[in-house]
Amino acid sequence: MKLEATKKLLMIPGPTMVPPEVLNAMAMPVIGHRTKDYGALLEDTIEKLKKVFITENDTFLITGSGTAAMDMAISNIIKRGDKVLNIVTGNFGERFANIVKAYKGEAIRLDIEWGDMADPEAVKEILDKYDDIKAVTVVHNETSTGARNPIKEIGEVVKDYDALYIVDTVSSLGGDYVNVDKFHIDICVTGSQKCLAAPPGLAAITVSEKAWEVIKKNDDKVGFYLDLLAYKKYYEEKKQTPYTPSVNLTYAMNVALDLVLEEGIENRVKRHERLAKATRAGLEAMGIELFAKERARSVTVTSAKYPEGIKDSDFRGILSNKYNIVVAGGQKHLAGKIFRIGHMGICGEKEILATLACVELALKELGFEVKESGVEVAKEVLLRE
Amino acid sequence: MKLEATKKLLMIPGPTMVPPEVLNAMAMPVIGHRTKDYGALLEDTIEKLKKVFITENDTFLITGSGTAAMDMAISNIIKRGDKVLNIVTGNFGERFANIVKAYKGEAIRLDIEWGDMADPEAVKEILDKYDDIKAVTVVHNETSTGARNPIKEIGEVVKDYDALYIVDTVSSLGGDYVNVDKFHIDICVTGSQKCLAAPPGLAAITVSEKAWEVIKKNDDKVGFYLDLLAYKKYYEEKKQTPYTPSVNLTYAMNVALDLVLEEGIENRVKRHERLAKATRAGLEAMGIELFAKERARSVTVTSAKYPEGIKDSDFRGILSNKYNIVVAGGQKHLAGKIFRIGHMGICGEKEILATLACVELALKELGFEVKESGVEVAKEVLLRE
Repeated sequence: MKLEATKKLLMIPGPTMVPPEVLNAMAMPVIGHRTKDYGALLEDTIEKLKKVFITENDTFLITGSGTAAMDMAISNIIKRGDKVLNIVTGNFGERFANIVKAYKGEAIRLDIEWGDMADPEAVKEILDKYDDIKAVTVVHNETSTGARNPIKEIGEVVKDYDALYIVDTVSSLGGDYVNVDKFHIDICVTGSQKCLAAPPGLAAITVSEKAWEVIKKNDDKVGFYLDLLAYKKYYEEKKQTPYTPSVNLTYAMNVALDLVLEEGIENRVKRHERLAKATRAGLEAMGIELFAKERARSVTVTSAKYPEGIKDSDFRGILSNKYNIVVAGGQKHLAGKIFRIGHMGICGEKEILATLACVELALKELGFEVKESGVEVAKEVLLRE
Repeated sequence: MKLEATKKLLMIPGPTMVPPEVLNAMAMPVIGHRTKDYGALLEDTIEKLKKVFITENDTFLITGSGTAAMDMAISNIIKRGDKVLNIVTGNFGERFANIVKAYKGEAIRLDIEWGDMADPEAVKEILDKYDDIKAVTVVHNETSTGARNPIKEIGEVVKDYDALYIVDTVSSLGGDYVNVDKFHIDICVTGSQKCLAAPPGLAAITVSEKAWEVIKKNDDKVGFYLDLLAYKKYYEEKKQTPYTPSVNLTYAMNVALDLVLEEGIENRVKRHERLAKATRAGLEAMGIELFAKERARSVTVTSAKYPEGIKDSDFRGILSNKYNIVVAGGQKHLAGKIFRIGHMGICGEKEILATLACVELALKELGFEVKESGVEVAKEVLLRE
């Protein structure tokens, strides 16, 4: 199979570039998933994942996307009519609210302007207003807006209530600070294809004791493939998954996690912060306005407003077709208004600098008057930081 | 990563051995799933899948196991209290009944002795008895028992009723005769890792117009990740999946389907039939009794009873540890009583003959008096057929 697109530089906020040793692991022969060998591999992978999540909580690998894990986080804990507080700062925060509704729960939304972050005090106010909120959901890093939420501070609020604290770290785990146990996160979900730099297709979920209590008492739970108690039973009894897992993605995830742990989470986050600074400075130097509010800016994805007159399809078309660099457009009401550059996973200086240089070329081709060379300013930031 | 188990011959009923060109496709760089390139790949893969299913119905690829697609088949069509007739001839037939219950439906079971098949007349009787059965589920090939159901004949019955006809072809599609349109199958599900010889992690589902009518009218559906209408919308509008798909498994599936179509479905089924005959004859020659009833025997997996005194863990332990061949044990109440040899996907003569020879060595080591050389008899069958 020949696929021209594989030569393009993937600068979208996931899936991200995958290191060759991880890709190679994908091509190893398949082994039986009901064997001790697979059990040992799964356990090893999960133990590594727990180190990245920084948790002692039960952790599971799910064959499916991050949304499958988001679904699990909701469908296992609620029954009809249950209230869930959904902090909505973008498309993925909204997805949690939609999942609550899809399971006939009541979604109580805390809507924040897209591009900004939630205020922990506003969360507290809502928790004080109702006495029967079963869970609070928040998306750590909103790839849709390039903004992040203060999950540590929100955790400090939620921990004093009965509500479970559910956090989506799909595009932050392994790239930004996440500490499941210290942040009091009851259910934390992530995906393989973002900062962890494994191929897409696997999700992971952590479950605290407090969450298990709620799940076990849920006497009107619906669902089968995503039933957490089945995952718990099979893992505890046999180190297996209840249904056939993607064996090859488990190989890949295991190697990808080795690379994360070898680099060290602290170093990895610092690398992401440094690249984010260079990207932002480079774009601003060119005269491009950043979209996310300064206090809320993500370290794994940068969002930027299109200057007047620059059409999304033209800009991203030139970048992809002429320069073989893929960046993302806006989602929902931001479509056509912003573009997004992912700098997560194994992304490094050369990718950021090449992207900034080609963004400049594309903008110039479209008639935008570039103020200053973005790549020059980004180089200075990288030298300094 | 080093994994000794990858040198073992996989003779279980899935996952099966994957051809090198399919494994290599897994290692190609990841591309963005919201790009036209991925859309073209997905569409191409789905068009090939439709040729294998032999259907004009809408067909979708799901990142998940076959069980995810079974879940979808039920969760999208029923609401609380709806009746579904579940034909149960083994573990996977039972799983459908469990899924119905997990979505608060009423599972009406037609239980058949494990190892045998359902009688279409018995299905008709139940459909005549109730006037509100929403669907009939049947598992074409029960890997748990090595028996298959007459899905063509059952389809002839169900088509005259309002009920939807749901068929699990997880371990038969690409190895046994399946014709979704001719068999009047409304929802057909399969998995990547059985007769199609792709790695595990993808499922597929076909949906007829009759099924869409039911799904669209379902005003109390629950579920999110497995919501078929979302898959339909994204595919129709953009040739995309609603949530991040496993891009690399799509590469692999595309190549695996090329190999199926190159061989031709008719040829492929004949190859499976021939190998099944050789396997059965070889086992019987040694003095091993087959488990599945003769009229119901699968062409993709052979089940056999352990002779008295042969312990499952000893037998499969010797096969795996000494001879590097992995066969499956029994499930549920058949654990310890039967073993199962998968001969699906790219399995050929050499694998069957090696397996029969090593089964004989293992049995002899455990003190069983082998009647006649199984491999010799199997060779004769292969020469003759």
